[in-house]
Amino acid sequence: MTNWKITLAYDGTPYRGWQVQPGLPTVQGLLAAAIERTVGERVLPQGSGRTDTGVHALAQVASVALAAAIPAANLHRALNRCLPPSIRVLMVEAMVPEFHARHSAIGKTYEYRIFPLKGKGSSCRDYAERICPPILAPTVWPCPWPLDLAAMDRAAQGVVGTHDFTSFAACDPDLNTRETQSLADAEPRSNIRCITRSGWEWGDGLAIYRVSANGFLHHMVRNLVGTFVQVGAHRMDADSIPAILAAHNRSAAGPTAPASGLFLVSVDYPSVVDSSETLR
Amino acid sequence: MTNWKITLAYDGTPYRGWQVQPGLPTVQGLLAAAIERTVGERVLPQGSGRTDTGVHALAQVASVALAAAIPAANLHRALNRCLPPSIRVLMVEAMVPEFHARHSAIGKTYEYRIFPLKGKGSSCRDYAERICPPILAPTVWPCPWPLDLAAMDRAAQGVVGTHDFTSFAACDPDLNTRETQSLADAEPRSNIRCITRSGWEWGDGLAIYRVSANGFLHHMVRNLVGTFVQVGAHRMDADSIPAILAAHNRSAAGPTAPASGLFLVSVDYPSVVDSSETLR
Repeated sequence: MTNWKITLAYDGTPYRGWQVQPGLPTVQGLLAAAIERTVGERVLPQGSGRTDTGVHALAQVASVALAAAIPAANLHRALNRCLPPSIRVLMVEAMVPEFHARHSAIGKTYEYRIFPLKGKGSSCRDYAERICPPILAPTVWPCPWPLDLAAMDRAAQGVVGTHDFTSFAACDPDLNTRETQSLADAEPRSNIRCITRSGWEWGDGLAIYRVSANGFLHHMVRNLVGTFVQVGAHRMDADSIPAILAAHNRSAAGPTAPASGLFLVSVDYPSVVDSSETLR
Repeated sequence: MTNWKITLAYDGTPYRGWQVQPGLPTVQGLLAAAIERTVGERVLPQGSGRTDTGVHALAQVASVALAAAIPAANLHRALNRCLPPSIRVLMVEAMVPEFHARHSAIGKTYEYRIFPLKGKGSSCRDYAERICPPILAPTVWPCPWPLDLAAMDRAAQGVVGTHDFTSFAACDPDLNTRETQSLADAEPRSNIRCITRSGWEWGDGLAIYRVSANGFLHHMVRNLVGTFVQVGAHRMDADSIPAILAAHNRSAAGPTAPASGLFLVSVDYPSVVDSSETLR
């Protein structure tokens, strides 16, 4: 058996998320079908975590053990031949047997892209109406309010560090448990996570949020973004984040931002399991 | 009655082209539905020409006469509220009664975007495999050959001027007649067109073709691109364009490039009909 790490990018627009669902197009389902067609083995590749319907990935990671003796380059090419252009395998690497895309993950980075429909700048008064280009629409949130990005960035700093993120977690506790079991946390069933980076910046006319953590609760990035946008629209104060965190209550935070703007950027692994030097 | 000029952008991916077809999603059909919902008038807006399934527009133009007395800004906002994010009205202008999006057009500009999967450069030998990012795939042709863009640009120069473009026209003559009747040509039923600009350049890792003419035959841009790519892959000579034009035979040229890379960039009108100063 060879234990493979498969790094892949996808446009989430046509898919019902990562996780396989009978009769529905999912990324995991299409990857499993491509593997079966390539090596004739019926297996379910494990992702680093699930992405929801419409969420994109620049570098999702999956792992799968295969009996077939096939060179990495051939497996890589064959999978891309079987997959649609909306899913691309970026890398295929043979790993140590212990490597598992979900259990081995020690951190993740997400990005969220907003197209502000009301100009750009720090003032709510001086803005121009903008139209979101149709080819951009599936990968951004065309946000109807003028955004004070400086205030949003100040709010974003407020979540850096180790906190209980219950106020930013989806209300379905089962979903959170399923999501969190993927992450290498000290207390896997808790809502405590450590955010190491959190900030907003302008890029190509888009407001872009980048966040890295040792793990994320279900809907956590979209709930953070929805809250920061409330701050950017001057409906919440940038300094209210500590109180929202302390509330441990979903209703203290802002609404959930749409899926379309969210990208899974990368998944981190400890160098010891990530190194192909440790191969048998 | 007010005669409106409606400028719109669309992502052609989810549509069966511009032209209305019963039971199928088309841009013209959705625009007509948005107009009906806005002003209660059942009319068919006329486009500057049809775009095929999967072809995009940065600025398609439609015209429609409406009885409703509605300010341009309100019509603009209302249409965008009724249309999906994949279709955006960019501009709404009241025009002279003579203005017709198709009959008044005197020229058009198209752009074609290629993502070369085999590196970038002028040599066929030194290239690296590239993977087309999934979110880019619906708006480019991920082209499997290394491309000699200098040769392609030389070939593209060869079509500038007034020529009979039969060799680059779709073989269905009915389609050509329907397409060409939209354009202000000296001989509307002929295959003679005047190309004023034709060239390739690199932009953001993409090979981009821009072409302007007083009119285009059906599939003409995609057939030109398919031929230039043969030149870029060193399967045809850059100097073979005059002979291909002289053949007046579709089989002399290269294959039709995929729809996904094609954008209608702009439609030109004489300033006399295009000026809102001539309004009643």
